[in-house]
Amino acid sequence: MTARAGAGERPLREDGTLRTSIATVCLAGTLEEKMRAAAGAGFDGIELFEPDLVASPLSPEQVAELAAELGLSLDLYQPFRDLEGVTEEVFADNLRRLEAKFRLMRRMGMDLVLVCSNAGTATEWEDGVAVDQLRRAADLAAGYGIRIAYEALAWGRFVSTYEHAWALVEQADRANLGVCLDSFHILSRHGDVTGFRSIPGEKVFFVQLADAPHLLLDLLSWSRHHRTFPGEGSFDLVGFHRELLATGYAGPLSLEVFSDVYRQTDTPRTALAAMRSLRWLQEAAAAADGQGPAAGRPRGWDYAEVRAAEPQDVAEVLTALGFADRGRHRTKDVRLFAAGDARVVVNAAPGPRGEDGSEIVGVGLQVPDPRATTDRARALGYPVAWRSNRADEVVLRGVTAPDGSEFFVAPVPGPGAEPAWTAEFGPAAEAPGGASGAEDSLLLGVDHVNLAQPWQWFDEGVLFHRALFGLTARANTEVASPQGLVRSQVMETDDGAVRLALNMLPQVLEGRDAGRGRADYPEHVAFRSSDVVEVARRARAAGLRFLPVPANYYEDLQARFGLEDRELGLLREHDLMYDRDEAGEFLHFYTRTIGSVFFEVVERRGGYRGFGAHGAPVRLAAQYDLDRRLDHR
Amino acid sequence: MTARAGAGERPLREDGTLRTSIATVCLAGTLEEKMRAAAGAGFDGIELFEPDLVASPLSPEQVAELAAELGLSLDLYQPFRDLEGVTEEVFADNLRRLEAKFRLMRRMGMDLVLVCSNAGTATEWEDGVAVDQLRRAADLAAGYGIRIAYEALAWGRFVSTYEHAWALVEQADRANLGVCLDSFHILSRHGDVTGFRSIPGEKVFFVQLADAPHLLLDLLSWSRHHRTFPGEGSFDLVGFHRELLATGYAGPLSLEVFSDVYRQTDTPRTALAAMRSLRWLQEAAAAADGQGPAAGRPRGWDYAEVRAAEPQDVAEVLTALGFADRGRHRTKDVRLFAAGDARVVVNAAPGPRGEDGSEIVGVGLQVPDPRATTDRARALGYPVAWRSNRADEVVLRGVTAPDGSEFFVAPVPGPGAEPAWTAEFGPAAEAPGGASGAEDSLLLGVDHVNLAQPWQWFDEGVLFHRALFGLTARANTEVASPQGLVRSQVMETDDGAVRLALNMLPQVLEGRDAGRGRADYPEHVAFRSSDVVEVARRARAAGLRFLPVPANYYEDLQARFGLEDRELGLLREHDLMYDRDEAGEFLHFYTRTIGSVFFEVVERRGGYRGFGAHGAPVRLAAQYDLDRRLDHR
Repeated sequence: MTARAGAGERPLREDGTLRTSIATVCLAGTLEEKMRAAAGAGFDGIELFEPDLVASPLSPEQVAELAAELGLSLDLYQPFRDLEGVTEEVFADNLRRLEAKFRLMRRMGMDLVLVCSNAGTATEWEDGVAVDQLRRAADLAAGYGIRIAYEALAWGRFVSTYEHAWALVEQADRANLGVCLDSFHILSRHGDVTGFRSIPGEKVFFVQLADAPHLLLDLLSWSRHHRTFPGEGSFDLVGFHRELLATGYAGPLSLEVFSDVYRQTDTPRTALAAMRSLRWLQEAAAAADGQGPAAGRPRGWDYAEVRAAEPQDVAEVLTALGFADRGRHRTKDVRLFAAGDARVVVNAAPGPRGEDGSEIVGVGLQVPDPRATTDRARALGYPVAWRSNRADEVVLRGVTAPDGSEFFVAPVPGPGAEPAWTAEFGPAAEAPGGASGAEDSLLLGVDHVNLAQPWQWFDEGVLFHRALFGLTARANTEVASPQGLVRSQVMETDDGAVRLALNMLPQVLEGRDAGRGRADYPEHVAFRSSDVVEVARRARAAGLRFLPVPANYYEDLQARFGLEDRELGLLREHDLMYDRDEAGEFLHFYTRTIGSVFFEVVERRGGYRGFGAHGAPVRLAAQYDLDRRLDHR
Repeated sequence: MTARAGAGERPLREDGTLRTSIATVCLAGTLEEKMRAAAGAGFDGIELFEPDLVASPLSPEQVAELAAELGLSLDLYQPFRDLEGVTEEVFADNLRRLEAKFRLMRRMGMDLVLVCSNAGTATEWEDGVAVDQLRRAADLAAGYGIRIAYEALAWGRFVSTYEHAWALVEQADRANLGVCLDSFHILSRHGDVTGFRSIPGEKVFFVQLADAPHLLLDLLSWSRHHRTFPGEGSFDLVGFHRELLATGYAGPLSLEVFSDVYRQTDTPRTALAAMRSLRWLQEAAAAADGQGPAAGRPRGWDYAEVRAAEPQDVAEVLTALGFADRGRHRTKDVRLFAAGDARVVVNAAPGPRGEDGSEIVGVGLQVPDPRATTDRARALGYPVAWRSNRADEVVLRGVTAPDGSEFFVAPVPGPGAEPAWTAEFGPAAEAPGGASGAEDSLLLGVDHVNLAQPWQWFDEGVLFHRALFGLTARANTEVASPQGLVRSQVMETDDGAVRLALNMLPQVLEGRDAGRGRADYPEHVAFRSSDVVEVARRARAAGLRFLPVPANYYEDLQARFGLEDRELGLLREHDLMYDRDEAGEFLHFYTRTIGSVFFEVVERRGGYRGFGAHGAPVRLAAQYDLDRRLDHR
């Protein structure tokens, strides 16, 4: 039985890090599918979630055999509910229930059970009752060689904090009774993790990790439906992890994530995402700044790549916006358009998913060390993206994001220099009227890129951008569209050099297997300008078709901000939208959509850091309205 | 302008009932689409939700023209936020904002604006400040011939109850200042609607209705995402409506439903569902029992109809369960199987959606007056279902439910008699071994039917069964399956004669346009027995393939309930599942799935009223596991 001994007796991994584990409830499928996926993703062990065992055709012995075959330890049997704080009569029946589980655990060689604080049947609120009952449960467990990890549920009836749970365990004073620290139950209540230090590491029998977005939900619903893997939510798990290590804890780091999404998604894929989240967490906790390796953090945008069924349509829009046509790539059927530091590669080849129309197939980011970034991506298990290259061409390194879009990384060019790969394009087309768009460009660069996300991979996307590029997740927002609510997650570098908006679509817009749902929901690239009014003026003169902004919007704008008539007239004349916050102003306009892509030009005045949230529903309605009109023509 | 005068000045409808209205935010699409759908569904007017106007290409004058053309009154401009309880400096700017809206309203001939209690900027908590500011706003409004309806948001900063809002309005004492009563804001806080009687009807300027399921959510999220139309949720809107009428209110009954679902669904369809909910509410409030016309309430199940690609497979299962083959219909390719009062019609013809495999295409209910039920369905706008009949055959009347399934209604047969339509079947097949299954049947009748529901139409389904059949909605539950959480809504008659479980599937199982998602999620008919053990014994002897129940389930059962070994052995021997509550016991087993249909046999001992919720995840896992094994063979 020693090969499957308890978590507390296990050594660290060979590299000195904590062992990794995952609760079977995190994953979809049968128990066997879950176990195979966990092993395939490289977990050292699992927590056996009781309902998964109950529903499994595998006998306990077969589960143990499968675990041994897969090299997985069975770290924790969970949960046992509503044990303590009850009358003697109820407690007698609870001990009978508990002993049945002990017998079951021994058949699998398991020696650690999770007992949650009573959230249902507790009637005796004096600590002394709970202490006595925990002690008696521990004494019963001792006869089976079993240890009990006691965990405070955030909604426990009398015990709902880890400090309280630890106080009871300390008083019960049994060698085989310790605590389980669960990040969700602690951080959802804004618990103070520095208190971990008062607990000896050997009394922390188990640790369960989950992240979550900040939601205004009752704790139970939040906990049961909306947990995420570390790095995909808003909790400070890095701080949690640090305080944990300070206790001397040497057991497994285990994930316990109840998620409506991950209960449905592909099991091996989810297991990989789960393992990635632990790798990220351990690296980030080890790094001085709590973010993990900083090498990958991008300094700016390199380019955006648009695949276009009708490349000429995209070229005309870009030219009207002031882009110069820098010519065709010397070996591939792609053209480069540039304005300031904004570069758009227009690709006439079919995209990776072979859809019709235009789409954003990938973007390029400038990073200090591209090879380090792709090495890190590989270490985290993200698939590598590539472009076929001739020997004499610049090698483009890239990574495929969870949503299927490709992120290429290139070195930061010297001051005033262009990226080396741009030399592979040319000769440049003659600019109309002899003016060279690039030289007097009013566009400074790419401001942000807006990508549609399928619901299955939205959470994974957050970790991808955080773990690989060190982007910070801003608070979620929701935007009303005529076809439902769009959930939007902004991720950006702290200096704003790279800003991404990830948009999760309403269900009705989501193709079942359609990947990123581009057909129904357009994505866009926004360019930053020093003078958006002049860009709009020139673009209109060049024949650009703007997204029309309804007159009602301007009336509302005036009521909202009390703008001067002259200012409002200027906005209206150029189909510009406007927003303001404490720090500054934001002016922007949109082009019409080509296929599934459109462009935006923005001007940020002062310290404005938003994206014109007030205008977003107006933009979505205008696009929807235009689509309908075109359909009905 | 008189044709579009304010709501308060309007008479009742010709039939003496209150006028009906709907907020544009309830519906998907553009403002024009919303208005056309509201008119098409028969609404008298609309509430204009400001963001819909702001995003519309229609000018205010065009909106007014369109409303006139469609015969819609523009009842309410909404919302105006964060007006009162602020410093003088902020209030001056608020009056400027407000006056801009007054000018806009006059261009549409509108005279009623909704002012919500301040939830954002309020800093002055003394009632006197709010009273003074509301009075000054009303005086400004008077100059434009505009009236203000003041509404307490449930999460208002200082004003969050209708009683408080009314107290302020009463003190402000202006003829053009009244209150708006919103059922969500009142009932979500468990407000006491009997207090309505202290408000004179003419001071209730507007009423907004929404229902909602009971959820453990903060009020704001609950309100913004999960409202439903009346009758689709859990609120007592009948009581609300009665107390409202007691005030003497004569303005419109208006729906304001923020719903993540209805923001996405087909606009004209949603508008019809909305109108239905108001018709139901008015009828139910008028009826003595608060349920509406009782004529339609079913006394029991008439039959279930299964379409089968391989009818012989279904026939074999039914025969093994003790059903007698009562022969073929005299003109149609369907056979009747009967056992006790359980009748299953097996249809070899293609189903309405022409899918492969087997599916439940409809059920029959016994009602006191079938014609009254279908007349009522027609009045509520539900589509009629039909079966081609020869002149000499019993006419089957039916209604198509929102999920596409068909509910036929037949008269209640006399005591001991069979439904008249059964005479169209025959001659009966010779029972094997000479025993007539029907005579010594251990099956009593249909216990419940379990139907998969697409997410778009789940809420509509609740109203359908409540409005047409007087079924009561029990509390929602959630069941974990290997492919995600299934949300289950039980609807039943109070005597349990008819019980339905409506199951909303995980997103991953939902075909985008696939109607009821049958392909991925099986539905079933459960039969009630007086002796489920004996039914199982005979069925096994007859070669029935049971859904296998894992051994682990029985171990857990013993730990949970402390069953005796003999009892447990009996359950295990027959693949029976077990549950217990305060009132009684529940034993049941499942057949394997044929196509997308399976059957269950249940025995209810004592007053047990549940459905064996503890076994549901085990059943789903066993079905999933079996599917996988069959796929991999």
